Amino acid sequence: MLLLDARAADFADAFESLLHMKRETDEDVNATVAAIINDVRHRGDLALVEYTAKFDRLPHLTPAGLAITADEVDAALAQVSPELMAALELAAERITDFHRRQVPQGYAYTDAAGVRLGQRWTAVQAAGLYVPGGTAAYPSSVLMNAIPAKVAGVERLVMVVPTPGGVLNPLVLAAARLAGIDEIYRVGGAQAVAALAHGTETIRPVDKIVGPGNAFVAAAKRQVFGTVGIDMIAGPSEILVVADGANDPAWIAADLLSQAEHDTAAQSILITDDADFGRRVALAVESHLKVLPRGEIARQSWEAHGAIVVVPHLDDCVALVDRIAPEHLELAVENPDALAAKVRNAGAIFLGRYTPEAVGDYIGGPNHVLPTARSARFSSGLGVHDFMKRTTLLGCDANALRAIGPAAVALAGAEGLGAHGLSVALRLNMAAP
Amino acid sequence: MLLLDARAADFADAFESLLHMKRETDEDVNATVAAIINDVRHRGDLALVEYTAKFDRLPHLTPAGLAITADEVDAALAQVSPELMAALELAAERITDFHRRQVPQGYAYTDAAGVRLGQRWTAVQAAGLYVPGGTAAYPSSVLMNAIPAKVAGVERLVMVVPTPGGVLNPLVLAAARLAGIDEIYRVGGAQAVAALAHGTETIRPVDKIVGPGNAFVAAAKRQVFGTVGIDMIAGPSEILVVADGANDPAWIAADLLSQAEHDTAAQSILITDDADFGRRVALAVESHLKVLPRGEIARQSWEAHGAIVVVPHLDDCVALVDRIAPEHLELAVENPDALAAKVRNAGAIFLGRYTPEAVGDYIGGPNHVLPTARSARFSSGLGVHDFMKRTTLLGCDANALRAIGPAAVALAGAEGLGAHGLSVALRLNMAAP
Repeated sequence: MLLLDARAADFADAFESLLHMKRETDEDVNATVAAIINDVRHRGDLALVEYTAKFDRLPHLTPAGLAITADEVDAALAQVSPELMAALELAAERITDFHRRQVPQGYAYTDAAGVRLGQRWTAVQAAGLYVPGGTAAYPSSVLMNAIPAKVAGVERLVMVVPTPGGVLNPLVLAAARLAGIDEIYRVGGAQAVAALAHGTETIRPVDKIVGPGNAFVAAAKRQVFGTVGIDMIAGPSEILVVADGANDPAWIAADLLSQAEHDTAAQSILITDDADFGRRVALAVESHLKVLPRGEIARQSWEAHGAIVVVPHLDDCVALVDRIAPEHLELAVENPDALAAKVRNAGAIFLGRYTPEAVGDYIGGPNHVLPTARSARFSSGLGVHDFMKRTTLLGCDANALRAIGPAAVALAGAEGLGAHGLSVALRLNMAAP
Repeated sequence: MLLLDARAADFADAFESLLHMKRETDEDVNATVAAIINDVRHRGDLALVEYTAKFDRLPHLTPAGLAITADEVDAALAQVSPELMAALELAAERITDFHRRQVPQGYAYTDAAGVRLGQRWTAVQAAGLYVPGGTAAYPSSVLMNAIPAKVAGVERLVMVVPTPGGVLNPLVLAAARLAGIDEIYRVGGAQAVAALAHGTETIRPVDKIVGPGNAFVAAAKRQVFGTVGIDMIAGPSEILVVADGANDPAWIAADLLSQAEHDTAAQSILITDDADFGRRVALAVESHLKVLPRGEIARQSWEAHGAIVVVPHLDDCVALVDRIAPEHLELAVENPDALAAKVRNAGAIFLGRYTPEAVGDYIGGPNHVLPTARSARFSSGLGVHDFMKRTTLLGCDANALRAIGPAAVALAGAEGLGAHGLSVALRLNMAAP
């Protein structure tokens, strides 16, 4: 863990190093992934079944068995406790409510020249959701990825999830059912991404693929981008907590560790104006680490990438926050709204002492798929917009074209584009440009 | 040019081939580009000046001479004719008016549980606009890329434009002035993209880079993506015209050629329900090609990639349109609005017989930077959204957390994320999960 003091002479350099700390290891799987995609593209189901048999240890899988049936989902649901089912339902309801408010509106108008103009939003027709298998299979992520698609109006939402050894994750299937997913297939890895992008006999292609995955999945998404749309490739998780000395150090320490426990490459940073409070948080981190189930992962993250930054006044933190552009920003201060209003770059902001980031991971309502690695400077969390696209509309009648067309002819001439000018000039009985 | 008849037995296959026709040639410049980026990143202005001296034949360039000054812009403006200046001004005004209506609104509410929720949009702080030099330097593209950024509220908008041999393009500089660009540098290629992404002594880094360019520029944008945001990588232009037999074939032929003249890899397609009209359009194309200044380029595009598709009824075209997902869709029919309402996938729609696509390229108001290569299935033209990002807000007090927190603790437990659960449980005085 790094301890920085904003008053120190070398602070600017130390902060710069913190910003550019390399946390991810690059694994070059591009050639392997390209071969798998090419194979699925050309041999379809046959290739998909062969890869799944091999990687997920399902030697008897046939194309007919690729789909996870409604009966299988029913059976899985029966294994989920009523308490967990209620928690999932509350989450789904709150996420739906928040995202419904995101649905963008188009517009249409006729201007003074008589030109009709407009913009409309339409949903992507079909979307695919990649859900990792094993320990990274999070039902909360199924809700967070699927619900915005359904709210956007995606007609066909397809989930792929690997089932190593044939084991289904009941909570993941329960979340899929709640979110209204239309089709589920027991496939994963680059082969699943290839099937979603190019289609096979069993899996019709989609227009956009979202969802987290390992290095193979990320590489496959990059490679099929263009054929289909993709969401961002998420990096390791991050949290930045801005806290004054009036907080309980144990609470703030737990918040820092809630991201650190995701991944040894995760990063947790505390900014405080109270150096003593910073020390007490560091001690509380140590104390939590001893008892947490994922303490070893969290410890590696905290020791390698964690930081406590002491600033003279919390007002000084805004410039630092904007440069870090954190995925998650907690403002555990007396007047969090005033501070939040000054921040430009953050994926999601958690206001006040009683809003730990984790409540937003599950149940708050806003999306937990958020921009990492400083990309909140230019990108946003997942939302309804990601499953819609804009079409603009322009309509002239003869009079309207007469009003604005000559300027187009002039500019086309200046750009040397004769057919552009001709197409307008012919309609205006103008001399060809 | 391909002639397809929807009633033919092999139509489905022939249409599928048309959809997947390969038009772009891949040029692998990645290694060269990576070396340039790395060099600019480490040697800054010195490298930038060296590359520019070499590629743009400016042997006496110094870091102090990188910026194109306001005096140089003034001098360039004096060379622009009043007619062209007025055309540019009308374009800028209309584009601004259309894009102002795109500015998205955030929201804020408190729900029944007492949880405060919201979403806000903020502008990207600094953006870079790449403008090609030479024949592809289009002042209209400067307006189309810069105005949405300024409307979004981007504080610092930086333009880079190569000036081979030191020659400035007066119209490009006039467009830059009209659009409110803040800084202009006489650099281009991968070195300009590297400077915008990583910064040099003279050029401070930006957060997002937009604008068209050659293979080196496109590769550089891909490589710096992540460090900064980028817009889409545009492919060759396309137009799909849906026209009944009541149109003037010469008008429709000019419309088809207005995209064909951009690039030999461009694609122009006509769908009509009148085979005879189709033949007359084909003849009119031949006649235009003989006189157009860029006739040779347009001819190569039309012969290699052009198509006329005859359908029994125009109502049958909607499914074909959605599969093509054209960048530009012209509806030269009696009731274009009714047809437009049925279309899902198109970058921009041009309504009726008096709305040639070219009027939208310059003066209509909507953006002319649009999704190519079937990507209108999942993406949109450039707009104000591309220069803004969303931040979500979540705020609980002790009571609100008591209402929704236990569900978060339950789900965190099910996902095995102990610190997540702990951070909520501590605040609720619950037993650690």
